Order: sequence, then structure tokens, then C-alpha cells
Amino acid sequence: MDSFDLRILKEISRDSRKPLKEIGKAIGIYSASAISRRIKEMQENNVIKGFKAEIDFGKLGYNFVTATFVRAKYGIEYHDIVAEKIMKIKGVIDVLFLLGDIDFYILCATKTKDDYVIILNELEKITEIERSDTHTVLNIYKYHDIANIF
Amino acid sequence: MDSFDLRILKEISRDSRKPLKEIGKAIGIYSASAISRRIKEMQENNVIKGFKAEIDFGKLGYNFVTATFVRAKYGIEYHDIVAEKIMKIKGVIDVLFLLGDIDFYILCATKTKDDYVIILNELEKITEIERSDTHTVLNIYKYHDIANIF
Amino acid sequence: MDSFDLRILKEISRDSRKPLKEIGKAIGIYSASAISRRIKEMQENNVIKGFKAEIDFGKLGYNFVTATFVRAKYGIEYHDIVAEKIMKIKGVIDVLFLLGDIDFYILCATKTKDDYVIILNELEKITEIERSDTHTVLNIYKYHDIANIF
Amino acid sequence: MDSFDLRILKEISRDSRKPLKEIGKAIGIYSASAISRRIKEMQENNVIKGFKAEIDFGKLGYNFVTATFVRAKYGIEYHDIVAEKIMKIKGVIDVLFLLGDIDFYILCATKTKDDYVIILNELEKITEIERSDTHTVLNIYKYHDIANIF
Amino acid sequence: MDSFDLRILKEISRDSRKPLKEIGKAIGIYSASAISRRIKEMQENNVIKGFKAEIDFGKLGYNFVTATFVRAKYGIEYHDIVAEKIMKIKGVIDVLFLLGDIDFYILCATKTKDDYVIILNELEKITEIERSDTHTVLNIYKYHDIANIF
Amino acid sequence: MDSFDLRILKEISRDSRKPLKEIGKAIGIYSASAISRRIKEMQENNVIKGFKAEIDFGKLGYNFVTATFVRAKYGIEYHDIVAEKIMKIKGVIDVLFLLGDIDFYILCATKTKDDYVIILNELEKITEIERSDTHTVLNIYKYHDIANIF
Amino acid sequence: MDSFDLRILKEISRDSRKPLKEIGKAIGIYSASAISRRIKEMQENNVIKGFKAEIDFGKLGYNFVTATFVRAKYGIEYHDIVAEKIMKIKGVIDVLFLLGDIDFYILCATKTKDDYVIILNELEKITEIERSDTHTVLNIYKYHDIANIF
Amino acid sequence: MDSFDLRILKEISRDSRKPLKEIGKAIGIYSASAISRRIKEMQENNVIKGFKAEIDFGKLGYNFVTATFVRAKYGIEYHDIVAEKIMKIKGVIDVLFLLGDIDFYILCATKTKDDYVIILNELEKITEIERSDTHTVLNIYKYHDIANIF
Repeated sequence: MDSFDLRILKEISRDSRKPLKEIGKAIGIYSASAISRRIKEMQENNVIKGFKAEIDFGKLGYNFVTATFVRAKYGIEYHDIVAEKIMKIKGVIDVLFLLGDIDFYILCATKTKDDYVIILNELEKITEIERSDTHTVLNIYKYHDIANIF
Repeated sequence: MDSFDLRILKEISRDSRKPLKEIGKAIGIYSASAISRRIKEMQENNVIKGFKAEIDFGKLGYNFVTATFVRAKYGIEYHDIVAEKIMKIKGVIDVLFLLGDIDFYILCATKTKDDYVIILNELEKITEIERSDTHTVLNIYKYHDIANIF
Repeated sequence: MDSFDLRILKEISRDSRKPLKEIGKAIGIYSASAISRRIKEMQENNVIKGFKAEIDFGKLGYNFVTATFVRAKYGIEYHDIVAEKIMKIKGVIDVLFLLGDIDFYILCATKTKDDYVIILNELEKITEIERSDTHTVLNIYKYHDIANIF
Repeated sequence: MDSFDLRILKEISRDSRKPLKEIGKAIGIYSASAISRRIKEMQENNVIKGFKAEIDFGKLGYNFVTATFVRAKYGIEYHDIVAEKIMKIKGVIDVLFLLGDIDFYILCATKTKDDYVIILNELEKITEIERSDTHTVLNIYKYHDIANIF
Repeated sequence: MDSFDLRILKEISRDSRKPLKEIGKAIGIYSASAISRRIKEMQENNVIKGFKAEIDFGKLGYNFVTATFVRAKYGIEYHDIVAEKIMKIKGVIDVLFLLGDIDFYILCATKTKDDYVIILNELEKITEIERSDTHTVLNIYKYHDIANIF
Repeated sequence: MDSFDLRILKEISRDSRKPLKEIGKAIGIYSASAISRRIKEMQENNVIKGFKAEIDFGKLGYNFVTATFVRAKYGIEYHDIVAEKIMKIKGVIDVLFLLGDIDFYILCATKTKDDYVIILNELEKITEIERSDTHTVLNIYKYHDIANIF
Repeated sequence: MDSFDLRILKEISRDSRKPLKEIGKAIGIYSASAISRRIKEMQENNVIKGFKAEIDFGKLGYNFVTATFVRAKYGIEYHDIVAEKIMKIKGVIDVLFLLGDIDFYILCATKTKDDYVIILNELEKITEIERSDTHTVLNIYKYHDIANIF
Repeated sequence: MDSFDLRILKEISRDSRKPLKEIGKAIGIYSASAISRRIKEMQENNVIKGFKAEIDFGKLGYNFVTATFVRAKYGIEYHDIVAEKIMKIKGVIDVLFLLGDIDFYILCATKTKDDYVIILNELEKITEIERSDTHTVLNIYKYHDIANIF
């Protein structure tokens, strides 16, 4: 991994269909096959996990987006199990395990308030959960902008 | 937009390089060109915003991941301005504006604790911010799994 | 439903005994029977749920008014059941189910502090409730002013 | 004011158009004119503040209902002024002044999340306010049920 | 009860051994026996509950004073029982039952930190208690100054 | 100061008018003059600060009792000044300075909710105060029971 | 114990290998044997508990330092037992029992975030614990600087 | 640095005066000079920062120990400056900078409650501090037990 790799990552994490030539021009490597080889290597060692279409779920009507903070019961030992159950609930797109007075951060997207109640009911069925605290997301300014890390 | 479109989206939001034939088999449309046309249409009306390489930033050494809750000063009126400033800070990958006692949820990824202090310093320079509360992320179980919405 | 309907609603949600003629003058429909017909239609499709006398319960001596925030036990699944039990308690006039770290908002009116203790005891008998937090209402500036929505 | 008055109030606070005869039968006063006279008296001494059409604002599309807790800046002395400003904001239907760590409870109804952001902006313009904390209302089980007091 | 009674109360709530003559001069009743009779009457109807020596417990070495906020378990119904148990603990001098997120306020005075741990252990034995939160009292500016009410 | 003194204090802190003979019998000193001398000595060294009539302010109509937690602005340095101002407000009977996230605990007794609003306004005029949080007292189980310390 | 003892303590709590002569010069006792004798005495009465090498655990790679606030279940009575269990967990270097809404303060040092998860799992196995709240330590400005007390 | 070094550290972080021979026996290196050389090396590269007498400050009368959580004003940028000021206050023995809703954790030891008020006053003079929250330490189970890390 060198700085060329990072710059390639930056490019393709924004647009994976950008022509190799253009990427090359942007980063100063003029051989498309060299770029192609580097991408393949990064796929092989799993730095690149895959390629995805970026979807505007708001445009699809999934406008009731919520950030939920979950506290698991203490002494359960099995955060993985709780996480596993949460992850399976339809509509859940982020599940992070945090240090502090909150255990999990969950991001959900549903079409309506009532659809979110269904998720809430599913969460309430997970007996290892002690409390949840849900905030309606008013605006998504930025989401999953990995290119901003490098 | 019909149910075929949704199923195509589901497939390509997981793997945008999946061969059209396979997608077709999975969803029951056997014409690759029909699928291709539908994808193009969804790109044109911006349901598909683009194609991205999915990168494992942990593998790149960005292992100090943090969820920060930000409260802006009351009476500022300009959430957009605060969000704009936060978004520009290097290392910030999510910025959501929430309803409730927290104003912004921010996800950051840095290589070390000290790199995060740099972000913290940047946040402290934004005079419209009143408080921040940062939680170290211990584990990312799921992130940006849009396919789970449909 | 058109803008005339909304203006009629606005008028009668403030004073349901206002003469149709006056309403007509205010909104620019000069036929009383037209207004009458529109009101009847809105009653039929339940936009108008009924007609009520507006009572000043403070004047009747119900001066100990309280806003109580209730947290139900997690994992109960049946918010409707808890709500049902709360609604039956004499003195309870509002019951809202909220998203966040509070589950229910309850408004009560009693004659004395001791009468409120009776409500508190009733709440404590509901085993699905985990905590309540009661705030004495010092002043009601506005309550149930639907006309302000339109 | 006697127990008959209270029973009349109970009846007409539920349905102000109930025929006097039926009210009479329900409460054991068989003279419609006696009931009518009692109602008039209660209007005169302002126990009955008026008559209102009860509107289902959800049916009108006002489905984004929120409960907001507001904390005013300390030392302002003029709660009335803050309340006055809040009350004027379109969409606000309840404004209560509470004892405790919250100063005002506000209930709002808007058609969409974005309409609520307009209210939030109006609140932020009130310089005497220190913080607001908004909870989305998932369900209104009961609202303005004065008849339940007696 | 008239304003003379109140002024007598004010005097004797500060100094119950003040000569009746002096009280009389202060309030404008020159008959000691009249004052005496009024005091006796207020004792009879229990407005005056008794006479107490006012002790400076700090001077006696009881310098570790604490204010403890207690939350009882919800659903216990029997606040009186919890209060009864708390009241019996040696060292407890105030027990108030509050409305809100705290149930009881307790004031204790002990000679040392370790003596307070004994009280804490006693509190922990009361199974109906959910949590306690203890604050060390740094200074008592005023305590039991009833004369300031009138 | 010996154990006899403490037992005398215990007796007279409950009833300062108890005959010396009875006190003597209770504690095993049969000389009334010895008890009298001990009391005088304890008055001289200020262990006994005075004698007070114990008044039931509830019986006098002061039924709206409140416990208020006050946070002073940080950096003021002069807790004494804030305390001084609070102490002067009519209706305030306890003022304690605490260690922790609350600075002052204040107990007030007024006749009505509206009378308490006057105290609240006085508190708001003290510019060194940042926040107050008031809880209505539902019941006074025990107050100023110094005899329970020994 | 006199002021010379305190000054000796101050010196050797910073550097226990400082030559007695230098200590003597610093504090004005010119006999090394006198200083030696005083140190021995303070060891005998356990004011000096021992001598320790001061280790920079950060330099050893223990860079993930955390401050954890632990709340034990109420009613357990046996804080000592909980403390005992916490103390045995490898990586725990401070265990303090606090008054207030937190029961224990724990300081831990591990090499990585994942090593801390092991401590977290150990904490979760202690059934008497109700909640823990962990804060990542960004910087240690001062730790164990006893010399600053005198 | 090898495992022998770590074991030496473990021994001397508990007792720096343990004879080299005994250390040697415990860890399986039989040459005292080898151990001595390793210690010297670790001193040179600052893994060993020094040698300290371990003092029981409780035995010296410093029994009022407090854990204070400090929140600095947001936007100050200069945590180092605040820390610097806090560190200089006499009686402060720990100063940690934390991630989350608390900025600094401070441990203090004083002889009396009144001595702590002096520290509190010093903290209040630091204008960059917004709030402090102090908890009395009831018991120190373990403090500075670095040997427990390895």
C-alpha cells in the first residue's frame, strides 16, 4: 500500500466507474493497467470490499429516518448476540457498538412513522435490551463519505 | 418504479458488478438489456446516485472510530452553516441533523486517538457549537446496508 | 376539501355557534346552505369529529394541573395496553405516545395535591410502567388551539 | 354550581349538540328549559368558555405532531413574554408553563417534517430560549378529554 | 386566627422563651395574659406543635451532613412504608416525598464519613429503593427558619 | 460534654418544656438543679442555640411546599453572596450548599402556586444563578428531627 | 510527626532515591542519620507504605486508557464484594468508591481497544453491577502526584 | 524489551527495594548484575520514570478525598491551558482529560471539607471552566496499582 493506492481508493470510493485513464491523469500514473492491477490487489487483500450502487432512499419514499440509541441489559456478556438480532430487523442500516452510557447506535429508514413503530416493536422483543431512545433525523448532510478520511 | 426496479436496486446496492444475467435470474427478468435500461432510468432520475468502491477503512489503519453528538448554540438559526463547517473537517464521514436534545450526530474515523484530538480541536473552533460528547466506537456491526431497507 | 372548507373549519373550531351568515361573510361564501352542506360533509367523513362545550376547569376548582412523563418497561410490546390503562384513570385528559427517552406524556387536572396522589397511586399499579416524572403546571397559556394550525 | 351543573358540563363537553331532552333524561332533570338556563348561567360566569367544532387534524394531513420541551434562559423574569412569542408561531396548539427543569411544554402539528423545521427556526429566533428538545408524537391516545376530570 | 396570632407565632418560632411582655410590646398587645391565652389556643388547635431546644449539631461533632435523593421502585404503591423505614434510620433528620424524578429527599447528619456508610447500608437494605444519590452538604446557610414564611 | 448532656439534649430537642424532674427520671439524674445547670452550660457554649415554638405551617395554610435545586453560574467565587440573596426571599426556610452538580437546596413554603411564582421571580432576579429545578413536596414525613441523630 | 517529617515525605514521594544529604540540605536537617531514622519510623507506623518504581505504561504500549463509572445494583449491601471482584480484573489500576449517582470510579490501561473489551466482558460478568459508563482517556496530565498535597 | 523486563517491572513497581537476588529468583534470572543492567536501561529509555516512596495520605490526615468532573467551556481550544491551571492547585493529585460529556477528571485529597472549599474556589477562578461536579470518595480500594496491568 502506497500513496498511489490511497489516491486510487479516494477516487473509486467516490465513483467506481470513473475511467481508469481519468483516475490515472488525476493521480499521475499514466498506465491504466497499472491502476487496474492495484485495484485488483486491494480487492484481493480486502481493502476494497466490493462495489455498490449508491441509492437515494429518500427518493424511494424512505423519508422517516431515525437514529436510535440502545442500552443493553448489563451482565449479558453477549453483545454480539444483541447486535445480531438488531441487524436482522428490516429497515436497520447502521449498527455500531459504542463505549459509554449508550451501547448501540442504530440508523433506520422507513417510509412512515407507523413503519418505524414496527421496528420499535421488533426492538422491544429483544429481551436483552433495557432501553431505546429514538431521535427523528431531520436532515442527512453527509452519510458514508469514506473519501473524506484520507 | 415497480417491484422489479426495487429488486434490481437491492441487488446492485450490494454488488454493483454483479452480471446482469445473474441479477435477471434472481429477480425473474431474463433480458439483460431490460435490466440495463431500468438501471439507466434509475440513474437518470437520481434514485441511483452513483457507483462506489466499498472500502474497509479499518484495514487501512483508520481504527479509532468515534460517534460524536453535537449541540449547537440555541438561536443560531443556521443549522446549515454549522453542518457545512463540520462536513469539511477531514475524517468526518457522517453528519446527521437530529430532533431532540442532540443536534448533530457525527461519525469520524482516524488512525489514532491523537488524530481524533485534531478533529476535536476543529470542532471547538466552530463557535456555533455549544457542546460535544464523543463515544469511542468499539465495533461496527453494520454500516450503510441500504439493501436491508427494501 | 378545498380552501373554503379549511376556513370554515378554522371558524367553527373557534366558535361552533357562530351564525353561518357571519362565517360566510368572513370567508366569502354568501350562501348559508352551502356552508351548512360543507359542514355536514366534513362531519360525514369525520374531519369534524363532533361539537364540544369548552370548559374552564380551573374555574371549577381543578387547579392542580400536572404534566407527567411516563416510561414503560422495555420489552412489553404492548404500548396500547399501557395507554389503555392510563386513559381510564379519572383526571387524565391527555395521553400521547412519544418517540425518545419518554414513552408517554400525560396531562392531568385535579382539585388538590392529594387528589393527584390518587392518580399517582393508580399509575403505580400499572405494572408495565417503569418510571414517572411529574411536573406541576404553573400556567396554561394555550391548550387545544387547533385553529392555529391552518 | 351543584352536581347537576357538573353532569350537564360532562355531557356537553363531550357533545354540545346533544338534545337537551336527552341530557335531561341522563341526569334526571326533565325540564329542558331548566337545563338551558343552567347552561346559560355557566356561560355567563365563564365556566363554559364557548362551543367548538372538534377537528381531526390528522385527517387533514397534519400528521407530524411533536411535543417540544423548552428551557428559557434564567434570569429573564418574563415568562409571559416568551410564552407570548411561542403562542404566535403557526402550528403551536398547546403551551404550558411547568415547574422543574423544563420551562415550557409545546405541542405542534404540521403536515411534514420540513414544516416542523420552520417552527424550529421560529423558536430559535426567540432569544430568551436556551434549549429545546423535541419528541415526535407516535400516537395520540387521548387529547383534551375534559369530561374525564369530573 | 388573626394577624396578632401570626405575629406572636413569628416571635415564638424564633424564641419561645421571649418574655410575653416583650412580645406584647413588639406586636402592640399590652396584655401578657391575652398573649398567653392566644398561645394556649394555638397549642390546642395544633398550630403550635410544641416547644423545642434548638441544637447546633455541628458543635456536637455531627459535621458530615448529607442530602440524599432516593428513588423508590415503581409500582410499590406504598410510599408510606418506604418513608417509615427511612425515618427509623438513626441520623436521618428530614424525609420529604417529592413530585418528579426523585421520590424522597433525606437529610442526614453523622460524625464521620464512615458513620454515613452505615446509613447507606441501612438504605440499601430497604428493598423498595431503586437508587440513592448523595451530596455532601458543604454549608448550612439556613435550616428550619419558619419565621421567614409569614 | 458527657452522655448525660446528650440525653438531656435529646429530651429537650423534642420538648423543651418537659419538666426537669421528668427529664431527670428518664436519664437517671435525680437532681433538677444539676440538669438545669447542664442546660445553662450548653446554652453558654452555644450547643443549645435557643428555644423555639414548633409551628405546623400546613395548618396555617402554607401548603404549597417546594424543594428547589439551584445551580449558580460557575466562576462566581462568592457562594456566600448568592446564599445571602436567596435567604432573604420571603418563604425560604432551608438553604443548603451542596457538593456535586447542584449548588443549593432550597425549601420553600407558600400558600398557593401563585405565591411560589413570586419566589421564582425573585430567584430569577439573582443574576449569579444559572438554573433552578423545582419539585413540589407531596408529603413531609419528617423535618428537623434532630433528636434522631444521637 | 512534625513539619520535618512532612518535608521529608514530600521529597521522597517524588524521588525515593534522592541522597539523604540532599534531602537534608533541602529541608534544613544536616544529619543524614536523623533523616534515615525518621524515614524508618514513618515506615514502621505505615505512613510510608513502601517504595515503588514509577513506570510509564504508555511507553510500554498500554495506550488505551479508560475511566469507567460503575453503578452497582441497589440493595446489595456488599460494596466490598463488588470492589473485590473489580480489583482482580487485569488492567484495572484505580478503584474508588464514590458518594453520589456513581458508585465506583475505575481506571484501566490496556494496549488496544479490543483488550478493553475483555475488561468490559469481565465487568459484565459481575452480576451486582447495574451499569458501566466508559470514557476514553485522551491525556494524563497528572497521576498519583501525592507530593502536591502537602 | 522482553518478557524478563516486564517481570522485573512488575516486581519493582510493587517494591523497588526488593533485593535483586529475590527478583532474580522470582523471574528466573540468577545474575543480579543482569537485572541491575536491565533496570538501568529501562531508566535510560524512560520506561522507568523514577522511584517514589508510597505514602498513605489518609494516615497523614488527608481524609477528605474527592473525585471532581470538570467541563470546560466549548470553543476554548486550549485544554492544555486549563489542565495547567488545575494541576497547580494544591491538593490535586490526578488530572485526566477524557472523551465524552466530561472533560477532566480530578482527584483531590484534603484534610477537611473546608479545605476542599478552597480548592473549589480555585477551580471557580479558572474562567475556562463551565461546570464542576464533585463526588466525595468513601473508600479507596486500589490506587496506582500499575503492577496489575502486565
